Amino acid sequence: MNCNVPTDIVFSFEGFRQRGGVTDHHSDGWGIAFFEDDGCRMFLDHQPSALSPLAELVYRYPIKSTNVVAHIRKATQGVVSLANTHPFKRELWGRYWLFAHNGNLTDLPALGSSRFRPVGTTDSEYAFCWIMNELALRFVDKPPLPVLHAALAELADRLASQGTFNFLMSDGTALFARCATDLHYIVRCAPFATAHLSDTDVSVDFARYTGAKDMVAVIATQPLTDNECWVRMGAGELLMFIDGQPHRLPVTEEVAIAGAAQ
Amino acid sequence: MNCNVPTDIVFSFEGFRQRGGVTDHHSDGWGIAFFEDDGCRMFLDHQPSALSPLAELVYRYPIKSTNVVAHIRKATQGVVSLANTHPFKRELWGRYWLFAHNGNLTDLPALGSSRFRPVGTTDSEYAFCWIMNELALRFVDKPPLPVLHAALAELADRLASQGTFNFLMSDGTALFARCATDLHYIVRCAPFATAHLSDTDVSVDFARYTGAKDMVAVIATQPLTDNECWVRMGAGELLMFIDGQPHRLPVTEEVAIAGAAQ
Repeated sequence: MNCNVPTDIVFSFEGFRQRGGVTDHHSDGWGIAFFEDDGCRMFLDHQPSALSPLAELVYRYPIKSTNVVAHIRKATQGVVSLANTHPFKRELWGRYWLFAHNGNLTDLPALGSSRFRPVGTTDSEYAFCWIMNELALRFVDKPPLPVLHAALAELADRLASQGTFNFLMSDGTALFARCATDLHYIVRCAPFATAHLSDTDVSVDFARYTGAKDMVAVIATQPLTDNECWVRMGAGELLMFIDGQPHRLPVTEEVAIAGAAQ
Repeated sequence: MNCNVPTDIVFSFEGFRQRGGVTDHHSDGWGIAFFEDDGCRMFLDHQPSALSPLAELVYRYPIKSTNVVAHIRKATQGVVSLANTHPFKRELWGRYWLFAHNGNLTDLPALGSSRFRPVGTTDSEYAFCWIMNELALRFVDKPPLPVLHAALAELADRLASQGTFNFLMSDGTALFARCATDLHYIVRCAPFATAHLSDTDVSVDFARYTGAKDMVAVIATQPLTDNECWVRMGAGELLMFIDGQPHRLPVTEEVAIAGAAQ
Protein backbone atom coordinates (compact mmCIF):
# COMPACT_ATOMS: atom_id res chain seq x y z
CA MET A 1 0.00 0.00 0.00
CA ASN A 2 1.19 3.49 -0.88
CA CYS A 3 -0.81 6.60 0.04
CA ASN A 4 -0.66 10.34 0.50
CA VAL A 5 -2.01 10.26 4.08
CA PRO A 6 -1.28 7.72 6.80
CA THR A 7 -3.88 5.00 6.33
CA ASP A 8 -4.54 1.74 8.11
CA ILE A 9 -4.41 -1.49 6.12
CA VAL A 10 -6.87 -3.44 8.27
CA PHE A 11 -9.39 -4.07 5.48
CA SER A 12 -6.89 -5.25 2.86
CA PHE A 13 -4.99 -7.26 5.45
CA GLU A 14 -8.14 -9.13 6.46
CA GLY A 15 -8.48 -10.48 2.92
CA PHE A 16 -4.77 -10.90 2.34
CA ARG A 17 -4.12 -12.99 5.43
CA GLN A 18 -6.73 -15.56 4.31
CA ARG A 19 -4.38 -16.46 1.46
CA GLY A 20 -1.88 -17.77 3.98
CA GLY A 21 -3.59 -21.10 4.55
CA VAL A 22 -7.31 -20.58 3.86
CA THR A 23 -8.01 -19.32 0.32
CA ASP A 24 -4.49 -19.98 -1.00
CA HIS A 25 -1.52 -22.21 -0.24
CA HIS A 26 0.99 -19.50 0.71
CA SER A 27 1.30 -20.82 4.24
CA ASP A 28 5.08 -20.90 4.84
CA GLY A 29 5.21 -17.72 6.91
CA TRP A 30 4.21 -14.12 6.45
CA GLY A 31 5.38 -10.63 7.22
CA ILE A 32 4.22 -7.04 7.13
CA ALA A 33 6.21 -3.83 7.53
CA PHE A 34 4.93 -0.31 8.07
CA PHE A 35 6.82 2.91 7.54
CA GLU A 36 5.94 5.56 10.09
CA ASP A 37 7.90 8.66 9.03
CA ASP A 38 11.49 7.41 8.70
CA GLY A 39 10.94 4.57 11.15
CA CYS A 40 9.82 1.12 10.12
CA ARG A 41 7.90 -1.45 12.12
CA MET A 42 7.97 -5.04 10.99
CA PHE A 43 6.01 -8.10 12.07
CA LEU A 44 7.31 -11.47 10.92
CA ASP A 45 6.03 -14.95 11.62
CA HIS A 46 6.89 -18.32 10.15
CA GLN A 47 3.42 -19.58 10.99
CA PRO A 48 0.63 -19.31 8.37
CA SER A 49 -0.92 -15.84 8.41
CA ALA A 50 -4.43 -17.24 8.72
CA LEU A 51 -3.52 -18.80 12.11
CA SER A 52 -0.87 -16.43 13.49
CA PRO A 53 -1.45 -14.59 16.82
CA LEU A 54 0.73 -11.84 15.39
CA ALA A 55 -1.63 -11.45 12.42
CA GLU A 56 -4.47 -11.16 14.92
CA LEU A 57 -2.61 -8.28 16.62
CA VAL A 58 -1.93 -6.50 13.33
CA TYR A 59 -5.64 -6.85 12.54
CA ARG A 60 -6.73 -5.46 15.91
CA TYR A 61 -4.11 -2.70 16.30
CA PRO A 62 -4.56 -0.41 13.30
CA ILE A 63 -1.23 1.15 12.40
CA LYS A 64 -1.44 4.16 10.10
CA SER A 65 1.24 4.31 7.45
CA THR A 66 1.87 5.77 4.01
CA ASN A 67 3.92 2.78 2.85
CA VAL A 68 3.23 -0.83 3.80
CA VAL A 69 4.82 -3.97 2.36
CA ALA A 70 3.30 -7.36 3.21
CA HIS A 71 4.07 -10.87 2.01
CA ILE A 72 2.79 -14.39 2.47
CA ARG A 73 5.28 -17.06 1.59
CA LYS A 74 5.11 -20.26 -0.40
CA ALA A 75 8.63 -21.64 0.05
CA THR A 76 10.41 -22.37 -3.24
CA GLN A 77 14.04 -22.03 -2.10
CA GLY A 78 15.08 -22.06 1.57
CA VAL A 79 13.41 -23.74 4.54
CA VAL A 80 10.47 -22.31 6.47
CA SER A 81 12.16 -20.10 9.07
CA LEU A 82 12.12 -16.59 10.43
CA ALA A 83 15.34 -15.69 8.55
CA ASN A 84 13.65 -16.65 5.27
CA THR A 85 10.47 -14.68 5.92
CA HIS A 86 9.74 -11.62 3.74
CA PRO A 87 9.84 -8.65 3.73
CA PHE A 88 13.59 -8.24 4.12
CA LYS A 89 15.03 -5.01 5.47
CA ARG A 90 18.35 -3.23 5.05
CA GLU A 91 19.64 0.31 5.62
CA LEU A 92 21.10 2.26 2.69
CA TRP A 93 21.83 6.01 2.49
CA GLY A 94 20.46 6.43 6.02
CA ARG A 95 17.06 4.98 5.11
CA TYR A 96 15.47 1.60 5.68
CA TRP A 97 14.61 -0.41 2.57
CA LEU A 98 12.03 -3.18 2.44
CA PHE A 99 11.83 -5.92 -0.16
CA ALA A 100 9.31 -8.70 -0.85
CA HIS A 101 9.48 -11.09 -3.80
CA ASN A 102 7.03 -13.43 -5.49
CA GLY A 103 8.67 -15.85 -7.88
CA ASN A 104 11.79 -17.96 -8.20
CA LEU A 105 15.30 -17.10 -9.37
CA THR A 106 18.24 -19.39 -10.14
CA ASP A 107 21.91 -18.88 -11.04
CA LEU A 108 22.09 -15.40 -9.55
CA PRO A 109 25.32 -13.37 -9.90
CA ALA A 110 27.94 -13.99 -7.18
CA LEU A 111 27.87 -11.74 -4.11
CA GLY A 112 31.21 -12.71 -2.52
CA SER A 113 32.37 -10.42 0.27
CA SER A 114 29.90 -7.75 -0.68
CA ARG A 115 28.51 -5.06 1.56
CA PHE A 116 24.97 -6.48 1.72
CA ARG A 117 24.73 -10.21 2.32
CA PRO A 118 21.78 -12.51 2.90
CA VAL A 119 21.17 -13.83 6.41
CA GLY A 120 18.79 -16.56 5.26
CA THR A 121 18.89 -18.93 2.30
CA THR A 122 16.26 -17.61 -0.11
CA ASP A 123 16.86 -16.50 -3.69
CA SER A 124 14.72 -13.48 -2.76
CA GLU A 125 16.95 -12.05 -0.04
CA TYR A 126 19.97 -12.85 -2.20
CA ALA A 127 18.49 -10.87 -5.10
CA PHE A 128 17.64 -7.99 -2.76
CA CYS A 129 21.24 -7.87 -1.48
CA TRP A 130 22.53 -7.89 -5.05
CA ILE A 131 20.31 -4.92 -5.93
CA MET A 132 21.36 -3.05 -2.79
CA ASN A 133 25.04 -3.64 -3.53
CA GLU A 134 24.62 -2.35 -7.09
CA LEU A 135 22.73 0.73 -5.90
CA ALA A 136 25.37 1.46 -3.24
CA LEU A 137 28.11 1.19 -5.88
CA ARG A 138 26.33 3.59 -8.26
CA PHE A 139 25.13 6.22 -5.80
CA VAL A 140 27.00 7.49 -2.73
CA ASP A 141 23.81 9.21 -1.56
CA LYS A 142 20.20 8.62 -2.43
CA PRO A 143 19.58 9.90 -5.97
CA PRO A 144 16.39 11.68 -7.06
CA LEU A 145 13.50 9.19 -7.29
CA PRO A 146 13.24 9.18 -11.11
CA VAL A 147 16.95 8.33 -11.36
CA LEU A 148 16.53 5.58 -8.79
CA HIS A 149 13.48 4.30 -10.67
CA ALA A 150 15.49 3.98 -13.90
CA ALA A 151 18.42 2.29 -12.15
CA LEU A 152 16.11 -0.18 -10.41
CA ALA A 153 14.37 -1.02 -13.67
CA GLU A 154 17.67 -1.85 -15.28
CA LEU A 155 18.89 -3.93 -12.32
CA ALA A 156 15.56 -5.75 -12.10
CA ASP A 157 15.72 -6.61 -15.80
CA ARG A 158 19.15 -8.15 -15.32
CA LEU A 159 17.91 -10.45 -12.54
CA ALA A 160 14.63 -11.17 -14.33
CA SER A 161 16.49 -13.21 -16.93
CA GLN A 162 17.15 -15.74 -14.13
CA GLY A 163 13.52 -16.64 -13.45
CA THR A 164 10.31 -15.06 -12.17
CA PHE A 165 10.79 -11.69 -10.54
CA ASN A 166 7.70 -9.94 -9.19
CA PHE A 167 8.68 -7.67 -6.30
CA LEU A 168 7.76 -4.77 -4.04
CA MET A 169 10.41 -2.44 -2.63
CA SER A 170 10.13 0.73 -0.56
CA ASP A 171 12.13 3.16 1.54
CA GLY A 172 9.06 4.93 2.88
CA THR A 173 9.13 7.74 0.29
CA ALA A 174 8.16 5.65 -2.74
CA LEU A 175 6.99 2.11 -3.37
CA PHE A 176 8.40 0.30 -6.39
CA ALA A 177 6.33 -2.54 -7.86
CA ARG A 178 7.82 -4.79 -10.50
CA CYS A 179 5.67 -7.24 -12.39
CA ALA A 180 6.94 -10.37 -14.11
CA THR A 181 3.84 -12.54 -14.20
CA ASP A 182 1.19 -11.31 -11.75
CA LEU A 183 0.75 -7.93 -10.12
CA HIS A 184 -2.41 -5.82 -9.95
CA TYR A 185 -3.10 -2.41 -8.48
CA ILE A 186 -5.94 -0.08 -7.70
CA VAL A 187 -5.90 3.61 -6.81
CA ARG A 188 -8.75 4.64 -4.54
CA CYS A 189 -9.72 8.32 -4.36
CA ALA A 190 -12.84 10.46 -3.96
CA PRO A 191 -15.64 9.69 -4.50
CA PHE A 192 -14.89 6.64 -2.35
CA ALA A 193 -17.24 3.66 -2.57
CA THR A 194 -17.87 0.37 -0.81
CA ALA A 195 -15.41 -2.44 -1.47
CA HIS A 196 -15.96 -6.13 -0.90
CA LEU A 197 -13.12 -8.60 -0.25
CA SER A 198 -12.57 -11.54 -2.60
CA ASP A 199 -11.24 -13.88 0.10
CA THR A 200 -13.78 -13.43 2.88
CA ASP A 201 -17.24 -11.88 3.09
CA VAL A 202 -16.27 -8.45 4.41
CA SER A 203 -17.18 -5.03 3.01
CA VAL A 204 -16.09 -1.54 3.92
CA ASP A 205 -17.50 1.83 2.90
CA PHE A 206 -14.32 3.85 2.38
CA ALA A 207 -16.34 7.09 2.20
CA ARG A 208 -16.80 6.83 5.97
CA TYR A 209 -13.07 6.69 6.73
CA THR A 210 -11.43 8.96 4.16
CA GLY A 211 -10.93 12.61 3.30
CA ALA A 212 -11.65 14.28 -0.04
CA LYS A 213 -7.98 14.43 -1.03
CA ASP A 214 -6.92 10.95 0.08
CA MET A 215 -5.17 8.81 -2.53
CA VAL A 216 -4.57 5.18 -1.63
CA ALA A 217 -2.88 2.73 -3.97
CA VAL A 218 -2.98 -0.99 -3.17
CA ILE A 219 -0.81 -3.38 -5.14
CA ALA A 220 -1.26 -7.16 -4.89
CA THR A 221 -0.50 -10.32 -6.82
CA GLN A 222 -4.21 -10.92 -7.34
CA PRO A 223 -6.99 -8.35 -6.74
CA LEU A 224 -8.07 -8.26 -3.10
CA THR A 225 -11.64 -7.12 -3.83
CA ASP A 226 -14.27 -8.48 -6.23
CA ASN A 227 -16.30 -5.32 -6.95
CA GLU A 228 -13.58 -2.88 -8.01
CA CYS A 229 -11.56 -2.49 -11.17
CA TRP A 230 -7.93 -3.51 -10.60
CA VAL A 231 -5.27 -2.75 -13.20
CA ARG A 232 -3.16 -5.67 -14.33
CA MET A 233 0.49 -4.67 -14.68
CA GLY A 234 2.44 -5.66 -17.76
CA ALA A 235 5.26 -8.21 -17.83
CA GLY A 236 8.55 -6.43 -17.11
CA GLU A 237 6.82 -3.24 -15.92
CA LEU A 238 8.25 -1.38 -12.91
CA LEU A 239 5.95 1.26 -11.45
CA MET A 240 6.98 3.82 -8.85
CA PHE A 241 4.12 4.77 -6.51
CA ILE A 242 4.36 8.12 -4.73
CA ASP A 243 1.54 9.59 -2.64
CA GLY A 244 -0.86 6.95 -3.95
CA GLN A 245 -0.12 7.59 -7.65
CA PRO A 246 1.71 5.30 -10.07
CA HIS A 247 4.56 6.69 -12.17
CA ARG A 248 5.73 4.98 -15.32
CA LEU A 249 9.36 5.14 -16.39
CA PRO A 250 9.88 7.39 -19.43
CA VAL A 251 11.30 5.08 -22.10
CA THR A 252 14.07 7.49 -23.08
CA GLU A 253 15.37 7.80 -19.52
CA GLU A 254 15.50 4.05 -19.06
CA VAL A 255 17.56 3.67 -22.23
CA ALA A 256 19.87 6.55 -21.29
CA ILE A 257 20.64 5.15 -17.83
CA ALA A 258 21.07 1.61 -19.12
CA GLY A 259 23.48 2.94 -21.74
CA ALA A 260 25.48 4.99 -19.24
CA ALA A 261 26.04 1.96 -17.03
CA GLN A 262 27.65 -0.16 -19.74
CA MET B 1 18.94 -12.30 27.94
CA ASN B 2 21.45 -14.85 26.71
CA CYS B 3 20.96 -18.58 27.22
CA ASN B 4 22.00 -22.03 26.07
CA VAL B 5 18.45 -23.19 25.26
CA PRO B 6 15.61 -21.17 23.74
CA THR B 7 13.87 -19.56 26.69
CA ASP B 8 10.93 -17.19 26.94
CA ILE B 9 11.43 -13.81 28.57
CA VAL B 10 7.87 -13.38 29.85
CA PHE B 11 8.81 -13.15 33.55
CA SER B 12 11.63 -10.63 33.15
CA PHE B 13 9.62 -8.64 30.61
CA GLU B 14 6.72 -8.31 33.03
CA GLY B 15 8.96 -6.49 35.49
CA PHE B 16 10.94 -4.63 32.85
CA ARG B 17 7.93 -3.13 31.11
CA GLN B 18 6.76 -1.52 34.37
CA ARG B 19 9.80 0.74 34.16
CA GLY B 20 8.37 2.32 31.04
CA GLY B 21 5.92 4.59 32.80
CA VAL B 22 5.03 2.91 36.12
CA THR B 23 8.06 2.25 38.33
CA ASP B 24 10.46 4.40 36.29
CA HIS B 25 10.34 7.37 33.93
CA HIS B 26 11.68 5.63 30.80
CA SER B 27 8.45 6.21 28.91
CA ASP B 28 9.61 7.52 25.52
CA GLY B 29 9.14 4.26 23.64
CA TRP B 30 10.38 0.73 23.95
CA GLY B 31 11.54 -2.17 21.87
CA ILE B 32 12.41 -5.83 22.13
CA ALA B 33 14.14 -8.10 19.63
CA PHE B 34 14.42 -11.89 19.65
CA PHE B 35 16.86 -13.98 17.72
CA GLU B 36 15.36 -17.25 16.52
CA ASP B 37 18.21 -19.12 14.83
CA ASP B 38 19.62 -16.60 12.34
CA GLY B 39 16.32 -14.75 12.07
CA CYS B 40 15.42 -11.80 14.25
CA ARG B 41 12.01 -10.58 15.29
CA MET B 42 11.65 -7.08 16.57
CA PHE B 43 8.79 -5.23 18.23
CA LEU B 44 9.06 -1.46 18.49
CA ASP B 45 6.65 1.09 19.88
CA HIS B 46 7.00 4.77 20.65
CA GLN B 47 4.32 4.47 23.31
CA PRO B 48 5.32 3.75 26.96
CA SER B 49 5.87 0.02 27.47
CA ALA B 50 3.55 -0.06 30.48
CA LEU B 51 0.62 0.99 28.23
CA SER B 52 1.51 -0.48 24.84
CA PRO B 53 -0.79 -3.04 23.16
CA LEU B 54 2.35 -4.46 21.55
CA ALA B 55 3.87 -5.05 24.99
CA GLU B 56 0.68 -6.86 25.91
CA LEU B 57 1.16 -9.15 22.89
CA VAL B 58 4.81 -9.84 23.75
CA TYR B 59 3.68 -10.72 27.25
CA ARG B 60 0.94 -13.08 26.04
CA TYR B 61 2.79 -14.71 23.13
CA PRO B 62 5.89 -16.33 24.63
CA ILE B 63 8.67 -16.33 22.04
CA LYS B 64 11.55 -18.68 22.84
CA SER B 65 14.96 -17.29 22.04
CA THR B 66 18.60 -17.67 23.06
CA ASN B 67 19.36 -13.96 22.63
CA VAL B 68 16.96 -11.14 23.43
CA VAL B 69 17.69 -7.41 23.55
CA ALA B 70 15.08 -5.07 25.05
CA HIS B 71 15.14 -1.36 25.79
CA ILE B 72 12.90 1.28 27.32
CA ARG B 73 13.76 4.79 26.30
CA LYS B 74 14.16 8.04 28.16
CA ALA B 75 14.83 10.48 25.32
CA THR B 76 18.05 12.48 25.77
CA GLN B 77 18.84 13.27 22.14
CA GLY B 78 16.29 12.90 19.33
CA VAL B 79 12.51 13.22 19.43
CA VAL B 80 10.16 10.45 20.52
CA SER B 81 9.59 8.53 17.29
CA LEU B 82 9.74 5.04 15.86
CA ALA B 83 13.00 5.79 14.05
CA ASN B 84 14.61 6.73 17.38
CA THR B 85 13.39 3.64 19.25
CA HIS B 86 15.97 1.04 20.38
CA PRO B 87 17.10 -1.63 19.68
CA PHE B 88 18.59 -0.69 16.32
CA LYS B 89 19.31 -3.38 13.76
CA ARG B 90 21.78 -3.69 10.89
CA GLU B 91 23.16 -6.55 8.79
CA LEU B 92 26.93 -7.17 8.77
CA TRP B 93 28.79 -10.28 7.49
CA GLY B 94 25.43 -11.89 6.64
CA ARG B 95 24.14 -11.63 10.22
CA TYR B 96 21.74 -9.26 11.92
CA TRP B 97 23.17 -7.09 14.70
CA LEU B 98 21.12 -5.50 17.46
CA PHE B 99 22.16 -2.57 19.57
CA ALA B 100 20.60 -0.81 22.57
CA HIS B 101 22.20 2.03 24.51
CA ASN B 102 21.65 3.59 27.90
CA GLY B 103 23.47 6.88 28.34
CA ASN B 104 24.33 10.00 26.41
CA LEU B 105 27.17 10.76 24.00
CA THR B 106 28.25 14.05 22.48
CA ASP B 107 30.81 15.13 19.86
CA LEU B 108 30.93 11.72 18.18
CA PRO B 109 33.40 11.14 15.30
CA ALA B 110 32.12 12.10 11.83
CA LEU B 111 30.37 9.41 9.78
CA GLY B 112 30.21 11.19 6.39
CA SER B 113 29.26 8.96 3.47
CA SER B 114 29.94 5.82 5.45
CA ARG B 115 28.46 2.42 4.83
CA PHE B 116 26.26 2.39 7.94
CA ARG B 117 24.29 5.55 8.58
CA PRO B 118 21.67 6.43 11.16
CA VAL B 119 18.04 6.68 10.06
CA GLY B 120 16.92 8.53 13.18
CA THR B 121 18.54 11.32 15.17
CA THR B 122 19.82 9.66 18.36
CA ASP B 123 23.42 9.61 19.55
CA SER B 124 22.83 5.89 20.17
CA GLU B 125 22.10 4.85 16.59
CA TYR B 126 24.92 7.13 15.44
CA ALA B 127 27.37 5.38 17.80
CA PHE B 128 26.11 1.97 16.64
CA CYS B 129 26.70 2.93 12.99
CA TRP B 130 30.20 4.16 13.84
CA ILE B 131 31.02 0.84 15.52
CA MET B 132 29.60 -1.14 12.59
CA ASN B 133 31.62 0.90 10.10
CA GLU B 134 34.81 0.32 12.08
CA LEU B 135 34.13 -3.42 12.35
CA ALA B 136 33.39 -3.67 8.62
CA LEU B 137 36.66 -1.89 7.84
CA ARG B 138 38.69 -4.22 10.07
CA PHE B 139 37.10 -7.55 9.21
CA VAL B 140 35.88 -8.67 5.76
CA ASP B 141 34.14 -11.63 7.37
CA LYS B 142 33.04 -12.23 10.93
CA PRO B 143 36.13 -12.89 13.06
CA PRO B 144 36.24 -15.45 15.89
CA LEU B 145 34.24 -14.21 18.88
CA PRO B 146 37.26 -13.50 21.15
CA VAL B 147 38.80 -11.30 18.43
CA LEU B 148 35.51 -9.51 17.97
CA HIS B 149 35.23 -9.07 21.73
CA ALA B 150 38.63 -7.38 21.87
CA ALA B 151 37.89 -5.13 18.91
CA LEU B 152 34.54 -4.10 20.37
CA ALA B 153 36.14 -3.30 23.72
CA GLU B 154 38.62 -1.01 22.04
CA LEU B 155 35.97 0.72 19.88
CA ALA B 156 33.66 1.12 22.88
CA ASP B 157 36.45 2.72 24.91
CA ARG B 158 37.00 5.26 22.16
CA LEU B 159 33.35 6.33 22.17
CA ALA B 160 33.08 6.15 25.96
CA SER B 161 35.30 9.22 26.26
CA GLN B 162 32.37 11.16 24.74
CA GLY B 163 29.89 10.52 27.53
CA THR B 164 27.97 7.65 29.14
CA PHE B 165 28.09 4.44 27.18
CA ASN B 166 26.26 1.44 28.62
CA PHE B 167 25.16 -0.85 25.80
CA LEU B 168 23.96 -4.29 24.74
CA MET B 169 24.83 -5.72 21.34
CA SER B 170 24.14 -9.15 19.80
CA ASP B 171 24.21 -11.05 16.53
CA GLY B 172 22.39 -14.06 17.95
CA THR B 173 25.56 -16.03 18.71
CA ALA B 174 26.87 -13.87 21.56
CA LEU B 175 25.58 -10.97 23.58
CA PHE B 176 28.00 -8.17 24.43
CA ALA B 177 27.24 -6.06 27.48
CA ARG B 178 29.25 -2.93 28.16
CA CYS B 179 28.96 -1.09 31.45
CA ALA B 180 29.79 2.56 31.98
CA THR B 181 27.69 3.42 35.01
CA ASP B 182 24.96 0.83 35.61
CA LEU B 183 24.66 -2.74 34.42
CA HIS B 184 23.88 -5.85 36.46
CA TYR B 185 23.63 -9.50 35.53
CA ILE B 186 22.57 -12.80 36.96
CA VAL B 187 23.21 -16.33 35.68
CA ARG B 188 20.47 -18.77 36.59
CA CYS B 189 21.22 -22.49 36.52
CA ALA B 190 20.28 -25.67 38.40
CA PRO B 191 19.21 -25.90 41.15
CA PHE B 192 16.68 -23.29 40.00
CA ALA B 193 14.70 -21.40 42.64
CA THR B 194 11.80 -19.00 42.91
CA ALA B 195 12.42 -15.41 41.84
CA HIS B 196 10.35 -12.38 42.75
CA LEU B 197 10.19 -9.23 40.59
CA SER B 198 11.27 -5.88 42.01
CA ASP B 199 8.81 -3.82 39.97
CA THR B 200 5.58 -5.73 40.46
CA ASP B 201 4.42 -8.44 42.85
CA VAL B 202 5.02 -11.48 40.64
CA SER B 203 7.00 -14.62 41.41
CA VAL B 204 8.02 -17.58 39.29
CA ASP B 205 9.44 -20.94 40.31
CA PHE B 206 12.03 -21.51 37.57
CA ALA B 207 12.46 -25.16 38.64
CA ARG B 208 9.08 -25.87 37.04
CA TYR B 209 10.07 -24.52 33.62
CA THR B 210 13.71 -25.45 33.19
CA GLY B 211 15.96 -28.42 32.49
CA ALA B 212 18.99 -29.50 34.51
CA LYS B 213 21.49 -28.09 32.01
CA ASP B 214 19.79 -24.77 31.28
CA MET B 215 21.92 -21.67 31.70
CA VAL B 216 20.14 -18.33 31.48
CA ALA B 217 21.90 -14.99 31.85
CA VAL B 218 19.85 -11.84 32.30
CA ILE B 219 21.56 -8.45 32.07
CA ALA B 220 19.76 -5.25 33.09
CA THR B 221 20.54 -1.70 34.15
CA GLN B 222 19.09 -2.41 37.59
CA PRO B 223 18.31 -5.88 39.01
CA LEU B 224 14.88 -7.10 37.94
CA THR B 225 14.32 -9.29 41.00
CA ASP B 226 14.62 -8.52 44.73
CA ASN B 227 15.46 -12.00 46.10
CA GLU B 228 18.42 -13.00 43.93
CA CYS B 229 22.04 -11.95 43.90
CA TRP B 230 22.81 -9.82 40.84
CA VAL B 231 26.40 -9.00 39.90
CA ARG B 232 27.19 -5.36 39.39
CA MET B 233 29.47 -4.85 36.38
CA GLY B 234 32.50 -2.61 36.62
CA ALA B 235 32.88 0.75 34.90
CA GLY B 236 34.40 0.19 31.45
CA GLU B 237 33.83 -3.57 31.56
CA LEU B 238 32.67 -5.37 28.40
CA LEU B 239 31.41 -8.91 28.94
CA MET B 240 30.67 -11.40 26.18
CA PHE B 241 27.83 -13.76 27.07
CA ILE B 242 27.71 -17.09 25.21
CA ASP B 243 25.27 -19.88 26.10
CA GLY B 244 24.34 -18.10 29.32
CA GLN B 245 27.92 -17.65 30.55
CA PRO B 246 29.90 -14.41 30.84
CA HIS B 247 33.38 -14.20 29.34
CA ARG B 248 35.86 -11.59 30.42
CA LEU B 249 38.38 -10.17 27.98
CA PRO B 250 41.93 -11.41 28.70
CA VAL B 251 43.91 -8.24 29.43
CA THR B 252 46.82 -9.24 27.19
CA GLU B 253 44.56 -9.81 24.19
CA GLU B 254 42.92 -6.43 24.60
CA VAL B 255 46.28 -4.69 24.65
CA ALA B 256 47.55 -6.72 21.67
CA ILE B 257 44.57 -5.85 19.48
CA ALA B 258 44.55 -2.22 20.52
CA GLY B 259 48.23 -2.05 19.64
CA ALA B 260 47.77 -3.69 16.25
CA ALA B 261 45.14 -1.16 15.23
CA GLN B 262 47.31 1.86 15.80
